[in-house]
Amino acid sequence: MSDVRVIEIKKSILEENEKKAILLKETLKDEGVFMINVMSSPGSGKTTTLKNTIERLDNLKIGVIEADVDSDVDARTISETGCEVLQIHTGGACHLDANMLHTGIQTLGVEGMNILFVENIGNLICTASFDLGAHKNLVILSVPEGDDKPLKYPHMFEIADVVVVNKIDVLDYFDFDLELFKERVAKRNEKAEVIAISAKTGEGIDDLVKWIKKSMDECHSS
Amino acid sequence: MSDVRVIEIKKSILEENEKKAILLKETLKDEGVFMINVMSSPGSGKTTTLKNTIERLDNLKIGVIEADVDSDVDARTISETGCEVLQIHTGGACHLDANMLHTGIQTLGVEGMNILFVENIGNLICTASFDLGAHKNLVILSVPEGDDKPLKYPHMFEIADVVVVNKIDVLDYFDFDLELFKERVAKRNEKAEVIAISAKTGEGIDDLVKWIKKSMDECHSS
Repeated sequence: MSDVRVIEIKKSILEENEKKAILLKETLKDEGVFMINVMSSPGSGKTTTLKNTIERLDNLKIGVIEADVDSDVDARTISETGCEVLQIHTGGACHLDANMLHTGIQTLGVEGMNILFVENIGNLICTASFDLGAHKNLVILSVPEGDDKPLKYPHMFEIADVVVVNKIDVLDYFDFDLELFKERVAKRNEKAEVIAISAKTGEGIDDLVKWIKKSMDECHSS
Repeated sequence: MSDVRVIEIKKSILEENEKKAILLKETLKDEGVFMINVMSSPGSGKTTTLKNTIERLDNLKIGVIEADVDSDVDARTISETGCEVLQIHTGGACHLDANMLHTGIQTLGVEGMNILFVENIGNLICTASFDLGAHKNLVILSVPEGDDKPLKYPHMFEIADVVVVNKIDVLDYFDFDLELFKERVAKRNEKAEVIAISAKTGEGIDDLVKWIKKSMDECHSS
């Protein structure tokens, strides 16, 4: 009995979230703001990747919404780039939803902003179920996590527009087969691009910046 | 409105889960089975740690319940040790609950078993909220994830009986301060022991085995 009840409510929550997400997506597009939802496991390097990427996106006005269960260490790191940052504490919740994000966007203010990055909570499962209305979903998977993750966490890879493989500077110390990983991603989602980077050394960040600019242009001209 | 509704239902789900967990804990203790709930982020090394640990727990009958959203790669790895293994697929759910585990235990059968390991889903948030009735909670955090995780994922460290720091063979390649990490764990939970290991090289596994045997004896004599 309790199982059925939960599923029904989950469905209605997801439907409400979906409506709000569609509205956010359209509103932001009209305002010229390109939004990217950045998702990964804890510790995959979301913040370091964002910091290095933002530093190379010259002449663009960037905003970042940081979502965390607790602490503001990531928001403080990102603020070093000089861009606008807002920290959301979810109070124990394992994902952001479109309502929380909407409140965050209203508080941050996005007038004149070109790109809004949302750094979601470190979670390879729950965040994938809640559409935020982002124009693109960016999923990071780091080398130490292993190349088997598309087998074990399918939904995240299914909704990704781009999969960033981070920490390739330590490829020699782990059993991570990049080609095999790409095949496994392609089986889940043949449209997702895979970009290998090291947020620490900067390798590959230019490719990611190129992908972001191209995707932003496509969003504005569509 | 929908928020209030969700919280009330979540509370009742957690209360129902808690009752079931207490029952499981008592029943297993009466049957002489010591249960450990193993939790971590995706890719922290739960399976490799379990495999190496089980290989050193001679003369004990061991069972493992593997929980995954999808795939059975971990169950196949564990089965190489010769112990009893059962795979549970949660069908998208981000955590095991006491009901799912109960079904798993009935299917696996635990007669004569000394230790039952439950390898929970890779998730540093949701799994911490659902008590499984385990006699001990074992949390793994790997070096590449970073030493700031007790700040950002407090609940997991609050419920841990032991925190295993895995992948210490790559300490030189990451900015991970083990002493600082221990301090941060202690701030969340001063009772949790911290054991540093490399599941890959075997370093520290003997300390973990010692902790497990000691905890098992305490459980049986309490």
